[in-house]
Amino acid sequence: MDLQKLVDDVLKDVEVYRGHGEVASYIPALKAVDPRKLGIAVAAEDGSVYCAGDAEEPFSIQSISKVFMLNLALDHVGATLWNHVGREPSGSPFNSIVQLEAEKGKPRNPLINAGAIVVCDNVMNHGTADEAVSEILDFMRERAGDASVAIDANVAQSENQAGFLNRSLAYFVSAFGNLRNPVEDVLSIYFRQCAIAMSCRQLARAALYLAFDGNDPVTRDAVTISSRARRINALMLTCGHYDNSGDFAYRIGLPGKSGVGGGILTVVPGFGTVVVWSPGLNSAGTSLAGAAALEKMVERTGWSVFV
Amino acid sequence: MDLQKLVDDVLKDVEVYRGHGEVASYIPALKAVDPRKLGIAVAAEDGSVYCAGDAEEPFSIQSISKVFMLNLALDHVGATLWNHVGREPSGSPFNSIVQLEAEKGKPRNPLINAGAIVVCDNVMNHGTADEAVSEILDFMRERAGDASVAIDANVAQSENQAGFLNRSLAYFVSAFGNLRNPVEDVLSIYFRQCAIAMSCRQLARAALYLAFDGNDPVTRDAVTISSRARRINALMLTCGHYDNSGDFAYRIGLPGKSGVGGGILTVVPGFGTVVVWSPGLNSAGTSLAGAAALEKMVERTGWSVFV
Amino acid sequence: MDLQKLVDDVLKDVEVYRGHGEVASYIPALKAVDPRKLGIAVAAEDGSVYCAGDAEEPFSIQSISKVFMLNLALDHVGATLWNHVGREPSGSPFNSIVQLEAEKGKPRNPLINAGAIVVCDNVMNHGTADEAVSEILDFMRERAGDASVAIDANVAQSENQAGFLNRSLAYFVSAFGNLRNPVEDVLSIYFRQCAIAMSCRQLARAALYLAFDGNDPVTRDAVTISSRARRINALMLTCGHYDNSGDFAYRIGLPGKSGVGGGILTVVPGFGTVVVWSPGLNSAGTSLAGAAALEKMVERTGWSVFV
Amino acid sequence: MDLQKLVDDVLKDVEVYRGHGEVASYIPALKAVDPRKLGIAVAAEDGSVYCAGDAEEPFSIQSISKVFMLNLALDHVGATLWNHVGREPSGSPFNSIVQLEAEKGKPRNPLINAGAIVVCDNVMNHGTADEAVSEILDFMRERAGDASVAIDANVAQSENQAGFLNRSLAYFVSAFGNLRNPVEDVLSIYFRQCAIAMSCRQLARAALYLAFDGNDPVTRDAVTISSRARRINALMLTCGHYDNSGDFAYRIGLPGKSGVGGGILTVVPGFGTVVVWSPGLNSAGTSLAGAAALEKMVERTGWSVFV
Repeated sequence: MDLQKLVDDVLKDVEVYRGHGEVASYIPALKAVDPRKLGIAVAAEDGSVYCAGDAEEPFSIQSISKVFMLNLALDHVGATLWNHVGREPSGSPFNSIVQLEAEKGKPRNPLINAGAIVVCDNVMNHGTADEAVSEILDFMRERAGDASVAIDANVAQSENQAGFLNRSLAYFVSAFGNLRNPVEDVLSIYFRQCAIAMSCRQLARAALYLAFDGNDPVTRDAVTISSRARRINALMLTCGHYDNSGDFAYRIGLPGKSGVGGGILTVVPGFGTVVVWSPGLNSAGTSLAGAAALEKMVERTGWSVFV
Repeated sequence: MDLQKLVDDVLKDVEVYRGHGEVASYIPALKAVDPRKLGIAVAAEDGSVYCAGDAEEPFSIQSISKVFMLNLALDHVGATLWNHVGREPSGSPFNSIVQLEAEKGKPRNPLINAGAIVVCDNVMNHGTADEAVSEILDFMRERAGDASVAIDANVAQSENQAGFLNRSLAYFVSAFGNLRNPVEDVLSIYFRQCAIAMSCRQLARAALYLAFDGNDPVTRDAVTISSRARRINALMLTCGHYDNSGDFAYRIGLPGKSGVGGGILTVVPGFGTVVVWSPGLNSAGTSLAGAAALEKMVERTGWSVFV
Repeated sequence: MDLQKLVDDVLKDVEVYRGHGEVASYIPALKAVDPRKLGIAVAAEDGSVYCAGDAEEPFSIQSISKVFMLNLALDHVGATLWNHVGREPSGSPFNSIVQLEAEKGKPRNPLINAGAIVVCDNVMNHGTADEAVSEILDFMRERAGDASVAIDANVAQSENQAGFLNRSLAYFVSAFGNLRNPVEDVLSIYFRQCAIAMSCRQLARAALYLAFDGNDPVTRDAVTISSRARRINALMLTCGHYDNSGDFAYRIGLPGKSGVGGGILTVVPGFGTVVVWSPGLNSAGTSLAGAAALEKMVERTGWSVFV
Repeated sequence: MDLQKLVDDVLKDVEVYRGHGEVASYIPALKAVDPRKLGIAVAAEDGSVYCAGDAEEPFSIQSISKVFMLNLALDHVGATLWNHVGREPSGSPFNSIVQLEAEKGKPRNPLINAGAIVVCDNVMNHGTADEAVSEILDFMRERAGDASVAIDANVAQSENQAGFLNRSLAYFVSAFGNLRNPVEDVLSIYFRQCAIAMSCRQLARAALYLAFDGNDPVTRDAVTISSRARRINALMLTCGHYDNSGDFAYRIGLPGKSGVGGGILTVVPGFGTVVVWSPGLNSAGTSLAGAAALEKMVERTGWSVFV
């Protein structure tokens, strides 16, 4: 398969969607992004990354970082993480608090906001907030093979200032004794980890180990244990897009995680990764042109895990 | 791989769970089933079915039939089905009515009870209830290659008599104009289709086309179109076990559908199917020994779609 | 106080609202009512009834009958009624099913639909549905002192045909074992008792005993025990208008019960009763001109229980 | 009526309940209170206060202060308050967040925690948090005719430290733009106003104006306008005891407000006020012996508003 032709063709397929959807507007730094940006990157087993469009330009990865934070939390605390957060789809929007009350402060899964806050607490574990932020940043740099990956301090600060709902979720979880560290420390990790900026190329490269049972196929690093990688993929498939997860599985059929910055990471087990970026979102907060690109790519390649 | 040895070994692996869990007791015919029954069947591309334990004994397939009814409904009405039922995980038990009120009588997905009732209405379409029941029965007989597959009339009658909650769901859906046929006709289909009795062997054979993109690999029948088969698999993975679907994907990583009769159907795309049966259920209504058997089988084979 | 002048003045006060609001349209017989109808009746301790406007014309009392059914159920089964239905405001619309699931088939109070269905079951008790209907009809005739009070058979039949949601509620309650009689029997009572037709004059006279601690001040009949009458008034005040009950208490300050036919019954403890009727409803299903008339009347008289 | 004999007799009536129920334990200062405390005070039109038991001992009035804060907020912003908070019973516990999500950050009523937080914001209005706290404290001192009324600084500090859930509610409301002042300022008012300590005698005297249409019958002060006093009474009757309000109206039939410190304030329109205090709470957070005392008192006097 000519992967460069594939990404070029898919870019053309979805030109019609360029600029469609609503750009996230709750913080100035996201609102300011050009809605016509559109990038695609495919990373293959040998580490080659095939790019089209704006695939080299860093964007705010936002909730996509939840996937890697989950990996770190499992590495720290193992299966005890599941005492603090579930692994079921929530059937609710990303920031819903209703389920939290019925289930006494235990979030449904680690890929909704409340669950990711609990994950931050477990990555921090017995250390400091700054150490936890360094850990995720170092992890992303090493996996991307690129030391220039950074947190956008402007975005992190805006997230903190605009973060009333996430703050409410964190205090709610804490009211049920489900955070071991001070709420504001945990939130400071949360607001910074979602402000990591990466390009499609960097992100596709960084996630490659998830397609190869936890092993980076280029460096041969055992990034995480085999069962953990496949389970992270399972969680992405069932819970990666909030109340749009079923539709994403139905249309695209790959484990994936979307962010309100307009990025979507998908894993093709045994083959590699695909990352798309376009800031316009559908009503569920998933990149509109990005999801369309993934749908086209799966049509062209048959990469669905369900075939 | 020696598939006969595989099923024999897995049966031994889970002997310890035989008789564990709670047998469904809401109707006499299910309550009367011997809790120590345990069967496993694996169907491969060439149509061979490898059996262990009680795999030849018919059991009440219950909600597993929802998978095939969904296929028939899509064949009848195509994508307009999604105007009447969603395709998102519900985050709720199989019989919850809460989501129906918030979403104005449109069930979350076709694999919960309310959604399956809507599916029955669409299989009936402009025909009669008896025709719809004949259609699903003929379909199962043909796919199983076994004309002896039948509906257990005793179970069907008990389901009807005990079916207060399903009746409530059906009238609720109808109150929002989401059934085109009379409620009691639709319910008569629902109560009969879930009373189909099949063995592990028959069911594994019948579902084989779902592992091969809609084509029966033995008869070469194009049972359904390719995209439809993979999408049914996607729905099984995200929604096949009610509020236990995430856990099933996490532990087993295969599209599957459980029934309160203790059966579980799973699809291994490109390879074949696995059916297990054991009547004792966990708290989410999934066979306890059955799920354990699938977990052992995936450990031994690496059949997860996420690797 | 010149009560005739009062009702005449209040009628003039609210002329401006005549015809405002939405007439109930879910059954033809209600939809056909002239939206400009407007009647007011005040019944005093000596049995005199002061009327203005269309106060002599029978209308469908609908949910107002729930008050009298509650009285009959308490007379039949006493405080054991509260094992089957609560006495708290629901915070939900009249026909919501959400609370029923969380509280396992026990409706919040006897004045929402699900609760009134449970009340019908307890009025039927060990008798027949027809006996229960005769009992409520005889009760209303005797209290109104008018043997011409009747059930509108046309309305009753339409309610049954259009009653998908009430049927769903009844089957739901029954699924939790909270009905002792067959669901369709209980529903046949429900659909008939809400089809009683009475005029403002008849209804004001009939309810007079509720203002005098359970004793009819004219006939001297001890209709019900003292504590029961005041408790029925308490339930009307906290629960009589579904999710509009708080607003009604805030604006008007009297125990009351509204019906979708446009009638509202209110009790002025120690003084008498007020009934208004006008078919146009506000968004909570309470008569718009009727509620305005009651507000004006309370302003003119100071009849609030909170002064 | 011999009111001193009344309070003495009622105290004897409920001796059997002394020490029953659960004392609030979420902060040390409340947990330390002797569970056998029991006080009763009745204030009459002439300002006489009849006391029995521990009626002279200050206790933490907790949520009872919400009634007076509501009065101040209405005095500040008038009916615009109802743009920010509703006036319907919530059907939920005092600290539930579920309804807030469905209704976009507008609390159901001013007597649940989220509503009281919004009320604090409106009492603060364009001033400072300290000014708002001074205002409520001065109000209570003036109405009680006792300058010794004070805030228990220890309780206020504990409330702040233990206030995860209230903090979550406040941030949630703020996320919907429903607070004009900084969240932590509003919370500092909330935590201090509920830490006011008063005796039964002081509280009964302070609330007297609510029984006389807004006018203090002793000082002749027009404390608030007539319609406002009766509406506050209406809100207490429908919403004063969270998801126990209906039961309180059913059993006691008086406008009232309970606090987790074990106090209950009730208003007898046209007669006076009754305050009881006993720290043991029922499952809905209302004083067990206190509610029993009010029930006995209403039986002995017929003071229900529904007679």
